[in-house]
Amino acid sequence: MSGGTPILVVGSVAFDDVRTPFGAGADLLGGSATHFSVAASYFTPVRLVAVVGEDFAEAHAAPLRERGVDLAGLQRRAGRTFRWAGEYDFDLNNPRTLDTQLNVFAEFSPELPAGWEDTPVVFLANIDPDLQASVRGMVREPRLVAADTMNFWIAGKPDALRRTLGAVDVLLINDGEIRQLTGRWNLVEAAEEIHALGPRTVVVKRGEHGVLVFAPGDVFAVPAYPLRRVLDPTGAGDAFAGGFLGQLAARLRQDQEPDWRRAAVVGSVMASFQVESFSLERVRQLRPGEIEERYAGFRKLTEFGDFQR
Amino acid sequence: MSGGTPILVVGSVAFDDVRTPFGAGADLLGGSATHFSVAASYFTPVRLVAVVGEDFAEAHAAPLRERGVDLAGLQRRAGRTFRWAGEYDFDLNNPRTLDTQLNVFAEFSPELPAGWEDTPVVFLANIDPDLQASVRGMVREPRLVAADTMNFWIAGKPDALRRTLGAVDVLLINDGEIRQLTGRWNLVEAAEEIHALGPRTVVVKRGEHGVLVFAPGDVFAVPAYPLRRVLDPTGAGDAFAGGFLGQLAARLRQDQEPDWRRAAVVGSVMASFQVESFSLERVRQLRPGEIEERYAGFRKLTEFGDFQR
Repeated sequence: MSGGTPILVVGSVAFDDVRTPFGAGADLLGGSATHFSVAASYFTPVRLVAVVGEDFAEAHAAPLRERGVDLAGLQRRAGRTFRWAGEYDFDLNNPRTLDTQLNVFAEFSPELPAGWEDTPVVFLANIDPDLQASVRGMVREPRLVAADTMNFWIAGKPDALRRTLGAVDVLLINDGEIRQLTGRWNLVEAAEEIHALGPRTVVVKRGEHGVLVFAPGDVFAVPAYPLRRVLDPTGAGDAFAGGFLGQLAARLRQDQEPDWRRAAVVGSVMASFQVESFSLERVRQLRPGEIEERYAGFRKLTEFGDFQR
Repeated sequence: MSGGTPILVVGSVAFDDVRTPFGAGADLLGGSATHFSVAASYFTPVRLVAVVGEDFAEAHAAPLRERGVDLAGLQRRAGRTFRWAGEYDFDLNNPRTLDTQLNVFAEFSPELPAGWEDTPVVFLANIDPDLQASVRGMVREPRLVAADTMNFWIAGKPDALRRTLGAVDVLLINDGEIRQLTGRWNLVEAAEEIHALGPRTVVVKRGEHGVLVFAPGDVFAVPAYPLRRVLDPTGAGDAFAGGFLGQLAARLRQDQEPDWRRAAVVGSVMASFQVESFSLERVRQLRPGEIEERYAGFRKLTEFGDFQR
C-alpha cells in the first residue's frame, strides 16, 4: 500500500521449523517483523528494519516484496539468519521452543535508511529492550509508538524494559507476561501498573480467548474468532499487532484519540487469518473483501440486543 | 417475582467453607440450586427441588425466601446438609476441593410438589445424571430443558450422562469439561459433538474469559466483565445459568427461537455480581437498576464501529 501514514517496524526476520498437531514445516519464513509487516501492509506502507544472513536469498523476500513492504532497512550480514524451532501441543497456546539460534541477530545493530527517522508510527517488535530503545531514539517525534515483549526480557532485562516502556504509547503483551511483569494477577490492576510505567494503552493478548484493550478511561474486549481449523498459531500476536497498528496508522488524525476498538477488531481479524495456515500462506494472499467479511463476522459474533425483562 | 414463566431447578443446597486469596468464610449458604435460584429470581418465578438436613434452620432459607423462591420442593431429611470445602489460588479458576460430605444428598430422591410437573422451563443443575434424568421425566412436555454437569460425572457416569443429554435442549458446561466429554480440543468441533447427543444449544463457560454460545446455526461470544475485585468465584456458573435461563423463561414465546444472545449477556451480568462477594451477599440484594446498568456496561465493553480503511 503506497498512500497513508507509514509504519516503521524493528524486529526479527527468521527461518522457523514448526510442528503442530496438524502438520509441520521447515525453513518457513517467520519472525516478528515479517508477520507484522505482511499483516500491516493491507492498511498502510510498512518500513522494515531487521537483519538476515547470507542464507537469506532474494526469493525468500518475495512475500514481503509482493506486499509492498519497504526492505531498505533490511541488513544482510555475514553468517546465518536467525532460526527458531518449536512445537505446539493441542492447546496451541504456548509453544515449546526446541532450538533458538540467534546467528546474525546476536550482533544486530539497527540503522535507519535516510528519511525513515521521520516515520510517524513505530512498532518495536519483541527484541532486546535496549535495541527497542535505540530504534525509538532514532525516530524524531513519532506520533505513536507501540511495543511488544516476552517473558525472556521480562525476566532477563527488567530494568531496560521499564526504561524502554517510558517512551512507548501502546504495549501489546500476553496475559501471562503482564502478570509476570507487574506481579499482579488481576488484569485491571496489572494494566494500571503498566500505565504508570508510560504506555497509556495496554493490549492484553489472550490467545484463543481474544484480547482486552485498556485505553485511557476505557476497557474493550474482543473474543478470538472461533475457527474449526487452527493449523499454526505462530505469528498470531504479530499479525494482530500488524492489523491493529496498520489500521491505526491508516486513520491517524492530529488531535483525535485513535479508535482503539476498531483497530483491535482489525488486529483480531488478521490474527484469525494468521492461524489458518503455516507461515504466511494465508495472510500473504488475502482476497479483496476478505478482511471486510471477517470484520463483519466479528460483529455477528459479538452483537446483542438491548436489555428487556 | 410472581408473574412470568416459572423455572424448576433441581440441584444442591449446601453449606460451603471457602477460602480465596482475598478472604474466607465458613458455613456459607451455597449449592448449585441456591446460586441458580437467587440469580433467576430477578427475572421469573423459581421452584426449587433439593434436600437439606436437620442442621438447616429456618433462618438459613432467608436469602431464598426473600427472593421469592418457592421452597415447596425442598425436602428436609434426618442427618446433615451437603457440605463442601474448597480453596482457590490467585487464578480463581479451578477450586481445590478440601472436603466433600454428601450427607443427606447421598440418598436424595427428588419429588415434585403437586402442579410442578407442568413447569415450562427446567434446569438440571450439576448432580448425578440419573437424578437429572429422573426429574426430567417427572415434568410433562417442558418447553425448555437445560443441564449442567462436571468432570466427576463425565468420568464416573458417562453413559448415564449421555442418556440424560438426549432429553436436554441446552447444555451449560465449562471448556475443560466439554473437551473431556467429547475428546475434542477444538470447541467448534466439540459443540458439534454435543449437538449430536441432543442439546441443540451449547454454552461453553470459560471463567474469566467469558462464554461461547453455540446455538442452531449461530455462534456468540461474551467476554467476562473485567472486575478490579473478584472475591469468590464460587457459584459463578450457577449464577450465569440463573440469569441466562431466567431471562429466557421471562421472554419465552411459542414458535419463536429464544434470544440466546441477550440471555447470555444477562447470565454474564449475574455471574459478574456473583464473584464480587462471598456466598450470596451481593446477588441477594441487587438495587433496582443495577442489572440494567451492568448490561449497559457489557455493551460498552464490546461495541465497536464499522470497518473503515
